[in-house]
Amino acid sequence: MNKEYDCLIIGAGPAGLSAGIYAARYSLKTIIAGIPLQSIITHAWKVENYPGFKEISGMDLINKFVEHVKHFEVPIIEEQIVNVEKKENHFLATTSTNKKIKARTIILATGSTSRKLNIANEDDFIGKGVSYCATCDAMFFKDKIVAVVGGSDSAVMTSMLLAQKSKKVYIIYRRDKLRAKPMMVNKVMKNNKIEVIYNAEVKKLIGDDFLKGIELSNGRKLSVEGLFVEIGHVPNTIIAKSLRVKTSEHGFIIVDENMRTNVKGVYAAGDICGSKNKLRQVITAASEGAIAARSVYEDKENEVV
Amino acid sequence: MNKEYDCLIIGAGPAGLSAGIYAARYSLKTIIAGIPLQSIITHAWKVENYPGFKEISGMDLINKFVEHVKHFEVPIIEEQIVNVEKKENHFLATTSTNKKIKARTIILATGSTSRKLNIANEDDFIGKGVSYCATCDAMFFKDKIVAVVGGSDSAVMTSMLLAQKSKKVYIIYRRDKLRAKPMMVNKVMKNNKIEVIYNAEVKKLIGDDFLKGIELSNGRKLSVEGLFVEIGHVPNTIIAKSLRVKTSEHGFIIVDENMRTNVKGVYAAGDICGSKNKLRQVITAASEGAIAARSVYEDKENEVV
Repeated sequence: MNKEYDCLIIGAGPAGLSAGIYAARYSLKTIIAGIPLQSIITHAWKVENYPGFKEISGMDLINKFVEHVKHFEVPIIEEQIVNVEKKENHFLATTSTNKKIKARTIILATGSTSRKLNIANEDDFIGKGVSYCATCDAMFFKDKIVAVVGGSDSAVMTSMLLAQKSKKVYIIYRRDKLRAKPMMVNKVMKNNKIEVIYNAEVKKLIGDDFLKGIELSNGRKLSVEGLFVEIGHVPNTIIAKSLRVKTSEHGFIIVDENMRTNVKGVYAAGDICGSKNKLRQVITAASEGAIAARSVYEDKENEVV
Repeated sequence: MNKEYDCLIIGAGPAGLSAGIYAARYSLKTIIAGIPLQSIITHAWKVENYPGFKEISGMDLINKFVEHVKHFEVPIIEEQIVNVEKKENHFLATTSTNKKIKARTIILATGSTSRKLNIANEDDFIGKGVSYCATCDAMFFKDKIVAVVGGSDSAVMTSMLLAQKSKKVYIIYRRDKLRAKPMMVNKVMKNNKIEVIYNAEVKKLIGDDFLKGIELSNGRKLSVEGLFVEIGHVPNTIIAKSLRVKTSEHGFIIVDENMRTNVKGVYAAGDICGSKNKLRQVITAASEGAIAARSVYEDKENEVV
């Protein structure tokens, strides 16, 4: 505990681990706290869009990042951070086993959690038919029947993307009118492959090892092999809030172009940020992590932190 | 020539190739024009900071990107684009062998060129002692004597970074006062490892296979194994300018957070952009390429392009 780190990175997904790699390159005394295998990317059974790896599981990819971090001898403490206090010239973090970590700066990279349907067996089918990321997974449902839950721009965009390759796409929405942009809705209406089912929710997931079908609140049963849940994301901002870091109306952390938050010495990267580009990808998260580490380094050199 | 592409990506470095991968994921009819092995990253003899690859040559990394693009069957035409005309609803590009490519949108990813010293043998020593990227290469000069050319923030930051690991760092600057921020300059002054040589330029590079020393305009000879040239970058914006794409005072393309330029249907990614984060890295370029492709897809779906 006497040791003071230049930087504590909270979160060990693509953003946090990439920040660790870059912090090491800048010779910052760095520690990462978080559990890599709890990163949302580990849910992806195949990642085909992290440039450089044609095809790799989310699990294997995160392990590559971990190896990379360890190669630079940045310690990863595989625990949650449960509390962070801002002291005069540093931050004092407490882990779930009550270890204390003292650091001059913090990079928040705790990601976000896809909003779930909260129905039985949902977790069991993740990576086996249930997906929360069409950009990641649409391609694996070529010539298959799939369903999308939601009625937002993002749900409609997902259905259009799926319709390019899939055999048929159901949109299941709990209201009686899609709330996506009219032009997008028009396209959905004109697309023969897409059928919208209004005033319905998914009640049951059917299948053994892999998803085979769903049952709706209106009693209808659909044979689908893929179910894309597009009902939003919840950023993991408990610590951010305790540090009075500003968030957007949707709860995502507001950062400037260099990943600085409104609080001196606190930076953020990855899905926890309300990046305007809407891409929640390994490549964008890793890029933001690198930029955050660079900012820590610059601020340290300029004696801002 | 009858074929109309959704997107022509000009440039085949990390930004362009990543854009190609993502454009394919969005099922955009895409073509890439450019020569991957001319990307500036191929100059890096070791890349240790692209997350997921602990250590890889720039050449091998770009080849991984190329394989990835080819896996998605996106054609790469290995030629320069010499001209692009804006027509009513599309762009018409001409390659160096006078091939014509018709596309509804353009992603500009032609990168930038490090400003060189323009002295004899400079190119021969690239990757053999001469570097234009300290973030990429500083680590390879542990316990060695190195020199930095330049007097800007970036040159001074480079010298501080090098001083962490190297034995000694010379800063060679043609003026009589460093133009970096005073606080940074103070640090340089206090750092025992750094010696500033004013009113001098590098005139000669000495060495056989690898750099061994340099000769300055004042006649002084220095034994150095590394020479970091930090005198700026020149963006490759000839085509951008012909399309009336807006650039910053330093000549870099101005993009919004989704990599859109001021010209409808024209996007940009990577080193050609004046990104405010100042990081010119594979990870940031690849991220920008992905975001640009996403924007093309969105604009196509929304019938903006």
